[in-house]
Amino acid sequence: MLQKIELANKEAVRRIFEAEPVLIDVQPAGSVIEGLRENMILHSGPPIDWARMCGPMRGAVCGIAVFEGWAENLADAEKAAAAGRFSFHPNHHYGAVGPMTGMTTISQPVVIVENRTFGNRAYCTINEGLGKVMRFGGNDSEVLGRLRWIADVLGPALSLALKAGGGIGLKSIIARGLAMGDEMHQRNVACSALFLRDIAPSLARTANDNDTLAEVLSFIGKNDQFFLNIAMAMGKSMTDPAQGIDASTIVTAMCRNGTDFGVRISGTGDQWFTAPVEMPSGLFIGAGSASEAADYTNAMYEITTSRNAEWTIPNLDFAGVPTGIDIRKVLQTGTAPVINTGIAHKQPGVGQVGAGIVRAPLACFEQGLAGLAQRMGIS
Amino acid sequence: MLQKIELANKEAVRRIFEAEPVLIDVQPAGSVIEGLRENMILHSGPPIDWARMCGPMRGAVCGIAVFEGWAENLADAEKAAAAGRFSFHPNHHYGAVGPMTGMTTISQPVVIVENRTFGNRAYCTINEGLGKVMRFGGNDSEVLGRLRWIADVLGPALSLALKAGGGIGLKSIIARGLAMGDEMHQRNVACSALFLRDIAPSLARTANDNDTLAEVLSFIGKNDQFFLNIAMAMGKSMTDPAQGIDASTIVTAMCRNGTDFGVRISGTGDQWFTAPVEMPSGLFIGAGSASEAADYTNAMYEITTSRNAEWTIPNLDFAGVPTGIDIRKVLQTGTAPVINTGIAHKQPGVGQVGAGIVRAPLACFEQGLAGLAQRMGIS
Repeated sequence: MLQKIELANKEAVRRIFEAEPVLIDVQPAGSVIEGLRENMILHSGPPIDWARMCGPMRGAVCGIAVFEGWAENLADAEKAAAAGRFSFHPNHHYGAVGPMTGMTTISQPVVIVENRTFGNRAYCTINEGLGKVMRFGGNDSEVLGRLRWIADVLGPALSLALKAGGGIGLKSIIARGLAMGDEMHQRNVACSALFLRDIAPSLARTANDNDTLAEVLSFIGKNDQFFLNIAMAMGKSMTDPAQGIDASTIVTAMCRNGTDFGVRISGTGDQWFTAPVEMPSGLFIGAGSASEAADYTNAMYEITTSRNAEWTIPNLDFAGVPTGIDIRKVLQTGTAPVINTGIAHKQPGVGQVGAGIVRAPLACFEQGLAGLAQRMGIS
Repeated sequence: MLQKIELANKEAVRRIFEAEPVLIDVQPAGSVIEGLRENMILHSGPPIDWARMCGPMRGAVCGIAVFEGWAENLADAEKAAAAGRFSFHPNHHYGAVGPMTGMTTISQPVVIVENRTFGNRAYCTINEGLGKVMRFGGNDSEVLGRLRWIADVLGPALSLALKAGGGIGLKSIIARGLAMGDEMHQRNVACSALFLRDIAPSLARTANDNDTLAEVLSFIGKNDQFFLNIAMAMGKSMTDPAQGIDASTIVTAMCRNGTDFGVRISGTGDQWFTAPVEMPSGLFIGAGSASEAADYTNAMYEITTSRNAEWTIPNLDFAGVPTGIDIRKVLQTGTAPVINTGIAHKQPGVGQVGAGIVRAPLACFEQGLAGLAQRMGIS
């Protein structure tokens, strides 16, 4: 039994390491995400209904409903949501991911990352920037206007450029970005700048007019977080093939919706193990100090099976990033995975107010182990 | 006397710290460097004549003479040089700097960095990339063709963009680049990418045709060393105002021409103190390890008077970069300034073969102290 688990875990991590994620296109979500329809809203984290949604999530729902034309204004949108007029589903159920509130709806363009080793694809909307933005619950005209520009101008421009350039391999950008201090959440400036270097010539070759091209280059260039959403879709495209390996105790997804934290484990397929989210501790920005950040990462080696030889961390003597969280190790050590998170204001519509550190609830992993044992017939 | 020296040194470092270097334009050297004429070649380091030039410097001289149309081919150029048909002068005598061989001639475009605090300007040619390039003595048709494209296409494009965008402040790019691991010589990838982010929208707004624009974006984007020459002109623009302060023992320039090493000291104005260059030790690339690099930088605090509060080094607990080499400290400690250098093949025309570490010869500082003492009437 133990050997079976070890082999299954090796296979799960092998699939993660052998992934070849390539950003191939940007298209409206409704045209590429199968089953996505009008009045349907994909959100972050495990399943949740309107009644249990937190403030920022509700704010984002109302905003995106107005953006999609499903409601006249925010007040109408709130009524419609409360009346059950929108159907809510996790991004993860549709091959997608999204930062913070993670709103994905038909008209929004999504980046398409193809994992060339396994042929699967993952989707994520385009990063809006920092501050008052929809992923943090922002929903006023400034936020919706920016989403409109992203849908009408930026998405189509990126699509043309990516098709002309033949797609952009992401693994090497991540490798280099890590060497330049990015940690892929609060700091994406290196990857964002390296990405712009890669795509700028293709954007120029496929531009319709240069005022628009300048706007596009400026938007990407001024958004230090631009690469975040690409990295998220990449992560999803890499871990999805590791899902559904019989007996594997490797975590394949961890996510939150502001109310619940959800975990998926390879051996239990698409089942969710959930628990109430914990409150992040943080002011700004992320870990309190460089040594704390190193401590957090070092602790993750205790609960993972492997190190990624292609992605290394300069400040940890170029150790490979910890990969493959094993729920058995989490429960044996009592060390919950650390999440470096943004913090949204609890009221709808306000936006980001900080960043900090939060732990995944251990209860998710306890349930996960029980669920896996049951599935394996050993409970 | 000691107090006079201390005050003079404080003033020298104050001028360096208060500099506000801005990249304002790119223009052919002959149109902006006063006194630069046909058959005149500015080179790196202190003064040197043809007879004493090393292989790569001779290779570059012959190449640039063909590029400028002053010779039919490399063989003719060599004869012309030996016959004294070209006049050679240090870049430093004309407000310019240049990497490695440092060829500056009338037709080559130079970046123009204006120090807005003091009103002075400094110039440097545009970085060609790595490998077989003129600054390492490369001189074949590939090298000359690239220089032609830089002069005909890239320079004018950068000029239009910089004028349209109002110039690019360089201090903040350096600050950020240091935080991302750049050390401004072997690693310029962060600053190069951040620079491209800044200038790309203006390049788009001022482009004549988008195939050319794509070429320009691609050339900058694929050259991790693009920012090097901008940083060099910036350094020159910052240290020039610190020159000529009576009694100051602060170094205002250190440079090499492949044969001699030259040092200038604030208190002795434009006088050179020279000694034979030492041979770099190195394979590739620069310091042998991260800890060695830290040791080298830490040693520089022993021979400098100050730390730059705006430019800090993450891996040294965000200590400010050592600033203001005091020749007295160099001689008291016997610690010569460390130079992180590229290494050219000794034969003309080959190009870069490595990078490594070399020390400034102590003899320059001994002569410098003697020269300053003489000037102050205390020898």
